[in-house]
Amino acid sequence: MSRVPDLDKLFSPKSIVLIGSSTIKINQNMISPTIFNAIRENLKEFKGTVKVIDIKDGNVKVNLEKEYDVAVIVLPPKETISSLRQIGEKIHFAIIIPGGFSDEDKAKLIELSKKYNFRILGPNSIMGVISSSIRLNTSFEPDFIPEVGSISIVCQSGGVGASLLDSLIEEGLGLDLSIWIGDSLDIDVIEVLKYLGKRDQTKTIGIYLEGVKDGRAFLSAIAEIVPDKPIVILKGGVAEASAERALLHTASIAGSHRIFTVAVRQAGAIVVEAIDEFITALKALGLKSKSMKGRSIAIVSNVGGPAILAADACFLYGFSTPPLSDEVYKRIKKVFPLIEPVNPIDLIADADYNRYIMVLKEVMKEEHIDGILLITMFRSCLTTPEDVKKIIEMVSFKKPCVIYTGGYGDLRKLMSVLPPEYHRKVVVVDDVWKAAFAFDVLYDYSVTCVEAAKRYMSSVVE
Amino acid sequence: MSRVPDLDKLFSPKSIVLIGSSTIKINQNMISPTIFNAIRENLKEFKGTVKVIDIKDGNVKVNLEKEYDVAVIVLPPKETISSLRQIGEKIHFAIIIPGGFSDEDKAKLIELSKKYNFRILGPNSIMGVISSSIRLNTSFEPDFIPEVGSISIVCQSGGVGASLLDSLIEEGLGLDLSIWIGDSLDIDVIEVLKYLGKRDQTKTIGIYLEGVKDGRAFLSAIAEIVPDKPIVILKGGVAEASAERALLHTASIAGSHRIFTVAVRQAGAIVVEAIDEFITALKALGLKSKSMKGRSIAIVSNVGGPAILAADACFLYGFSTPPLSDEVYKRIKKVFPLIEPVNPIDLIADADYNRYIMVLKEVMKEEHIDGILLITMFRSCLTTPEDVKKIIEMVSFKKPCVIYTGGYGDLRKLMSVLPPEYHRKVVVVDDVWKAAFAFDVLYDYSVTCVEAAKRYMSSVVE
Repeated sequence: MSRVPDLDKLFSPKSIVLIGSSTIKINQNMISPTIFNAIRENLKEFKGTVKVIDIKDGNVKVNLEKEYDVAVIVLPPKETISSLRQIGEKIHFAIIIPGGFSDEDKAKLIELSKKYNFRILGPNSIMGVISSSIRLNTSFEPDFIPEVGSISIVCQSGGVGASLLDSLIEEGLGLDLSIWIGDSLDIDVIEVLKYLGKRDQTKTIGIYLEGVKDGRAFLSAIAEIVPDKPIVILKGGVAEASAERALLHTASIAGSHRIFTVAVRQAGAIVVEAIDEFITALKALGLKSKSMKGRSIAIVSNVGGPAILAADACFLYGFSTPPLSDEVYKRIKKVFPLIEPVNPIDLIADADYNRYIMVLKEVMKEEHIDGILLITMFRSCLTTPEDVKKIIEMVSFKKPCVIYTGGYGDLRKLMSVLPPEYHRKVVVVDDVWKAAFAFDVLYDYSVTCVEAAKRYMSSVVE
Repeated sequence: MSRVPDLDKLFSPKSIVLIGSSTIKINQNMISPTIFNAIRENLKEFKGTVKVIDIKDGNVKVNLEKEYDVAVIVLPPKETISSLRQIGEKIHFAIIIPGGFSDEDKAKLIELSKKYNFRILGPNSIMGVISSSIRLNTSFEPDFIPEVGSISIVCQSGGVGASLLDSLIEEGLGLDLSIWIGDSLDIDVIEVLKYLGKRDQTKTIGIYLEGVKDGRAFLSAIAEIVPDKPIVILKGGVAEASAERALLHTASIAGSHRIFTVAVRQAGAIVVEAIDEFITALKALGLKSKSMKGRSIAIVSNVGGPAILAADACFLYGFSTPPLSDEVYKRIKKVFPLIEPVNPIDLIADADYNRYIMVLKEVMKEEHIDGILLITMFRSCLTTPEDVKKIIEMVSFKKPCVIYTGGYGDLRKLMSVLPPEYHRKVVVVDDVWKAAFAFDVLYDYSVTCVEAAKRYMSSVVE
């Protein structure tokens, strides 16, 4: 399938030509001067060469003197085909943003790509590619580049990808690449996945998928990558009605959701059911210490009620909150006699960072504890966001640690004082269920997924 | 149980005396000058008379010349008892904020309350009472009064209540009362519940509970209220470990979670499992048009992928997304030929408010549709928050409508342009699962809960 050795020139381009129009407007297919101008504006941030060609009327004339790694095209089908005919020899990749291409149009695109030896992302890619490190943003959204990080996302939907990226930015999470594959006329999710598997900057991969054409190849690609990098998949098209919409949306056959889920799990991927879970899973799998060998959690909290709800959520996810060892119990009791260090441990609402740090260091030593759920509420408590920052700085988190802060306001207060690096040390969530889910994903990856992937690969070889 | 005819003087007081200390500090029981000073500051906003008494040393001398509806007390047990002995005749209610009262202390409190005929909220109430309409805030949190509204919340935990209120404030939701019952030495959840059932300003009731002493009385109170006002319950103490913590926390015996859930559902309450669900349920039940008679949803969206995920979530909650009628299909197709109005309906990312309004008005007429899930993403779309505001203004929502906006950023953008009244017309959520859950709660209340409550009451009478 791959005629060009790899997709590096597409995802780490040095030069881009943008071809669109400040006059042509076609309703309902994302072709308008607004979108063209927005992309032009966004490409000003790109760390590389950019040339802009504005097609003023239907009479397309494009003449490139130099070669470009990528052409970003925002034109109607006829004009897209016409311009690619003229520049095909001078480009390596075309990102086709708009949708609305007929089968005939698509056949012509493929013909041109073969003739001139360029590859196509899209059509109907909608947002194209966002790369944080080189400040590349081919979407029409301003301020849409997250912090530089190690998560890469592949999306078959503009909207789902945009939602994800919006949340990533809000939470200060780091991104390597975000790729909208659109109709997968040429480059498809499997090829992108294989590329991400080899790309050093990417450590965690998230995929939103409505359907995949070659199931076996997809599963093999997953199984090969998973021992090195976790893969999280959100699949759309569970219901019959939504499968029908998926067919209209990206021409995907959703297939049986249950069969899909079982198959990708056997190949070692983590399957999530909601955008929320998607983000929580990506956050959890971005931890430096991903390793979680068992299902015992210690809950350390400054509030009683939320600690109880957290223990409930852990319990319903199949985790236990076993008692601390006698020695640790006694050592905590000696320093803080008014605290009753059963697990969940309530440090009481006036806990400061000293109380947290002492207890956390003790709990971190407990061999039978696999993960720590830290509850640090600010509302109704004397603990401050600065206290939590100090805790993260002063405790060495050798076991996965998830922090729950209470309401939306508390979460925002905490995030406003934490630098982006904290994401490598702890996972911060705004719901106790997300906390339990984060542990579930970490355990799943550490224990189940890697083994499953290896088993899958050996079964394929046999 | 009730010696005072009702709790009006406690929850709508005209005069308050705050008794605390700017010198006494006791670790781990929420007794400190910081807390006393914060409450004093908060009471400056109260629309009524406030007197502050600062106990400078252990030698408690309090002398009230006038009567006060409520005494808010932030003193250690000995000083609390001593001051109540001196002011008992002059007050109707005492809100005791701190915890740490021994059984002997508690016996003395009860003795005093009987002797002087005042009632007690707490001890260990932590935050006391917040009433939006009279700007009453006996908590030590600043800026902790939500918009005036019709939701009332009763909490057995400071932290859970604080989390809820934090989210209510962030989302601009309206509150009538928030009540922290603490250890329920005198006034308990049942008495408060009965009061809220009769209180005009309260239209929806939320309860966080770790345990209840008189189960039968609790169920009867629920069943009596539910036909008029929905009741949502979040229960802590599902797991054994958390039940143990609940016992330490508010001396509650959590009992069997399953039995509890079945029993309160039979009495007509809605049971939720997470703070998130709690808030979504309260939002949904605050709609003017709560009535939802069936389980058919129309999804109207400007993005394909999220519409598919939304249909999946609805499907997994047991809802269907049936096709539109031929007439409506044709009318939409005539105005917007490029749109394929199957359900979920994708209006395409360049939809403006005109396109939404036309389609929504048509869908609103469909008799076989019970609720509308409106997806209005901004990221990756040309729709704006102002468009959505216009939609809410121009469409008459005779059926429940839930709006999903995409990522956290999108949600905040939308909320920043919407006035508080919009909560009565539509429910805004940041997750498709919350959308499906909101419909589930609405259907549950409209169809199941009211009937269950009536059945429960008649079975009790027999």
